Amino acid sequence: MEQTRIEDAGSLRALIEAGDAPGIEEYLKPLHSADIADLLQQLDVEEQIVCLKRLDTQRAAEVLAELDAKSGQALLTLLSDHEVGKILEELPSDDAADLMSSLTPEKTERVEALLPSEDREDIQELLEFGANTAGGLMQVERVSVRDDSTMQEAVDVVRRAAEDVESLQRVYVVNETGRLVGELSILDLVIKSPQARVRDVMQRSTVAVPVDMEQKHVAAMFSKYDEFTLPVVDGQGRLVGRITMDDIIDVIEEEASKDFARLAGTTDQELGETSIFKVSRSRLPWLVTGFVGEGLGAILMSRYEASLATFVVLAFFIPMIIGTAGNIGIQAAVVVVRELALGQINIYRMGRRVLKELQVAFLNGLVLGGILFALVYFWRHDAALGALLWGTLLLVIFVAAFMGSSIPLLLHRWRVDPAIATGPFVTVSNDVIGMAIYLTLATAYLRTH
Amino acid sequence: MEQTRIEDAGSLRALIEAGDAPGIEEYLKPLHSADIADLLQQLDVEEQIVCLKRLDTQRAAEVLAELDAKSGQALLTLLSDHEVGKILEELPSDDAADLMSSLTPEKTERVEALLPSEDREDIQELLEFGANTAGGLMQVERVSVRDDSTMQEAVDVVRRAAEDVESLQRVYVVNETGRLVGELSILDLVIKSPQARVRDVMQRSTVAVPVDMEQKHVAAMFSKYDEFTLPVVDGQGRLVGRITMDDIIDVIEEEASKDFARLAGTTDQELGETSIFKVSRSRLPWLVTGFVGEGLGAILMSRYEASLATFVVLAFFIPMIIGTAGNIGIQAAVVVVRELALGQINIYRMGRRVLKELQVAFLNGLVLGGILFALVYFWRHDAALGALLWGTLLLVIFVAAFMGSSIPLLLHRWRVDPAIATGPFVTVSNDVIGMAIYLTLATAYLRTH
Repeated sequence: MEQTRIEDAGSLRALIEAGDAPGIEEYLKPLHSADIADLLQQLDVEEQIVCLKRLDTQRAAEVLAELDAKSGQALLTLLSDHEVGKILEELPSDDAADLMSSLTPEKTERVEALLPSEDREDIQELLEFGANTAGGLMQVERVSVRDDSTMQEAVDVVRRAAEDVESLQRVYVVNETGRLVGELSILDLVIKSPQARVRDVMQRSTVAVPVDMEQKHVAAMFSKYDEFTLPVVDGQGRLVGRITMDDIIDVIEEEASKDFARLAGTTDQELGETSIFKVSRSRLPWLVTGFVGEGLGAILMSRYEASLATFVVLAFFIPMIIGTAGNIGIQAAVVVVRELALGQINIYRMGRRVLKELQVAFLNGLVLGGILFALVYFWRHDAALGALLWGTLLLVIFVAAFMGSSIPLLLHRWRVDPAIATGPFVTVSNDVIGMAIYLTLATAYLRTH
Repeated sequence: MEQTRIEDAGSLRALIEAGDAPGIEEYLKPLHSADIADLLQQLDVEEQIVCLKRLDTQRAAEVLAELDAKSGQALLTLLSDHEVGKILEELPSDDAADLMSSLTPEKTERVEALLPSEDREDIQELLEFGANTAGGLMQVERVSVRDDSTMQEAVDVVRRAAEDVESLQRVYVVNETGRLVGELSILDLVIKSPQARVRDVMQRSTVAVPVDMEQKHVAAMFSKYDEFTLPVVDGQGRLVGRITMDDIIDVIEEEASKDFARLAGTTDQELGETSIFKVSRSRLPWLVTGFVGEGLGAILMSRYEASLATFVVLAFFIPMIIGTAGNIGIQAAVVVVRELALGQINIYRMGRRVLKELQVAFLNGLVLGGILFALVYFWRHDAALGALLWGTLLLVIFVAAFMGSSIPLLLHRWRVDPAIATGPFVTVSNDVIGMAIYLTLATAYLRTH
C-alpha cells in the first residue's frame, strides 16, 4: 500500500516462467492498477505482455495509462491493432490521445479505423492541441446541462454519464450557445430540491482555463484556486473539456524536473533514459559551452604568464576566487528562479530583489574575505596581499550576485524561461569575469610593490 | 482569472487611502478569495486589516488561509482574540491548526478559550502531529458511515455534514470498531438504490495513509493512485481524518523547493525571506565549506610551487579541469537525486545506475578531451602535453561521475536525504580531487621531460 515499499517482481517472474496463467491472474487480481504498473516496469516487454493478457480490457487499459511513456510505447507495438483499439476505447480521451500519439503513423491509421467514430473524433481533436497546453491536458468527457434545466434533469444526465466520466466532480452549466455560465457540485444534486432550476442553484463565478494556456500556468491556476477539476473553454468562452488535478500533479513534477535538468545543464528527457548516447548528447552542449568558456579563461590567464611565473602564489587562490564566484552566482540564480516559478516575485519590484542579493553578497563577502585574509596572513605572513585578496573577493562576489540575480529576472521579463540562466551562462561568465578582475587587480598591485 | 496576470493593487490602495469603505467592499465582492489574497500580499499590514474588515467572516477566513504564512501571522497579531476565534471557527481544521500554530503561546491560550470545545479539541489533536507528516496535513472533518447502514442513511449523513466538510469526495465506511473497511463515492449516493446496504455497494480495497507517514511519501501516494482525497488511519487502522489533493500540490512544490535550495547550498526558508541577515545565514555554511575546501586546494597547489613556477602553462588549465569535474559531478548528482525523488530508481539496481554514469562520462570525456587536445596543440604546439591533458581529464571526469552518482545513492540507502549531496560535498571534493590528480600527473610528466 505504501509507495516507498517497492514491490519485488521476483515471485511474479517465477509464475511467468512457469507458464502458470491462473497463478498470474490470482496474483494480480487484488492489486491496484498503479501497483501492477510498478511491477511491470521491472519486467521485460515479453513478460509484460504475458501479464497484460491475463487482465480484462478495462484493467489492462488502466495499467497501460499508468506506465511511463517508454514502457507503454514498447508494449503497444507488440499488441495487435484490434487489442490496441479495445484498450483505447476503455480509456478517458486524454489518456487515449497520449497513447495514440506514441504509435507509428501507420498503426495510428489502422487503429483509428477500428474505433467508434465518436471516440475517433475526440482523440483527433485532442491530438491537434500542443502537448504542453491546456488542450493537451484536458479530456473531452464532461457533464454539462443547460441553465434552464431542472435539478432532476441534471441528476438524470449525471446518471447516464456516470459510466463514461471518471472522477466526476462538477456538472458544468452552459447557456443556449454553449458558453460556460456556471457550475453545480455533485453534492448539490444530492442535497438540493429536484424541482429547483439549475440557474438558481448553480454557482456563477466559474474559474475557467483557456484551451491554449501553457501547462505551467494551468498548474498555477489549480494551485491557486484549490479546485480538483477546472473546465476548459475556447476563445468564445464555450465549454470544450475539463482538466483534473491528478494530471496537474504530473505537470508540476514535470516542470520541476525541467528546472532541475536546466540547472544541471541537461534536459529532462534524460530522466529514466537508458541509451548512454542520448544521455551524453543531452549533457554535452552545456559541458562544451562551459569548457570553451573556461578555455577562454586559460587564454586570458596566459596574458599574465610573466606575473604568474614571478608570483606563483597568485595561482593558488584562483580556484577559491572563481569557485566562490560560481557558488554565489548559482545561489542567487537558483533562488530567484524558484521564486519566479512559485510566483513569489512581483515583477514591478525587480530592482529591489537585485538590491537584496547585493546586500546579502556584501555580508557573505565580508565573512569569506575575512577567512581568506586570515589564511593569507597566517600562511604567507603578508597582510597587504591578504587585504588585496579580501577586496578583490568582495568585488568578484558583488559582480557574481548581480549577474546571478539580474539575468533570470531579465530573461523572465523578456519572456524567456529564466531557468536556462541557472546553468551555463551564469557559472561560466562568473568564472571568467571573476578571474579577469582578480588577475588585473592582483598583478597590478604586485608589480607596483 | 488567469494566474499569470498579476492584479495591480493600485486602485484598491486608492480606495483605502480615500477611506471609501463601501467602495472597497464593492471592489472585493466579485473576486475569488485567492485573488483577494494576491492583492493583499501587495499591501502593508494596516491596509490589509482595512480590507479584511470589509469582508464577512467566512470570506475573511478563506483569504487568511490563502495568504502565505508570514503575512497571515502579521495580520493575526493585529486582530482581536474574538476576531481570530471567529475566523478559526469558519476554517477547516487543518487550516485552523496551521493558523493557530503561528500565534504566540499567550494568544493561543486566549483564543482557544473562545472556541467551541469540539473545534478546540480538533485543533489541539492536529497540532500534536509533526508538521511534515500525514497527521500535520490532514483535516479531521470527514464523512463516515457504518458498513451496516443503508444508502438512504448515508445520504442523510451527507446532507447534514455538507455544510462543514469542504470538497466532499468520498464517504468512508467503518465497522463497529471504527476501522476503515471501504468507501462510497458521492456519485454512488446519486445513482445507487437508497435501500441498498452500504457494505454491498462500497468499494472494498481502500488505499489509506498511515497518520505518521512523511509528507513526501504521502505526496507520492497521491501521485501514484490519482485520488483527490485519501483517508488517514492510525496504527490500528481506525479512520482519523482525510487529506485532500490541493494540500498535496503545496507539498510537492515545497519538496521541490527544498531540493532546489539544497542544490544551491541554502535552505527553502529563505524563499520570500526579507531579512538579509537570515538569507546570509542560510547561505553561508555551504559557502564557507566550499571556501575552506578550495583553500585546502590552494595549500595543495602550493606544494607544486616549484613546478608551477617553471611550467606556468600548468596553471592555465586548472580552471578547465576543476570546472569540468564540478559540472560532470553536479550533472550526475542532480539527475540521480531527481530520479530518486520521482521514484524512478530501483534501489536493487544501484550498481547499474552508477555504471551508466561512468559510460556517459567516458563518452563526454572523449569529446571534451579532444577539444582540450586541439586547444593545446594549436595554441602551445605541444602534442605530448595535449595527450597528457586528455588522459588526465578523462580520469578526473571518471572520478567526478563516480562520486556524483554514487554519493546520492549511498545517502539514499542510508536513509539520509540524497539532495544534500548535490550541494557542497560533491562539488568541492571533485574540485580538490580533480586538482590533485591533475597536478600529480602533469608535474610528474613535465619533470621527466
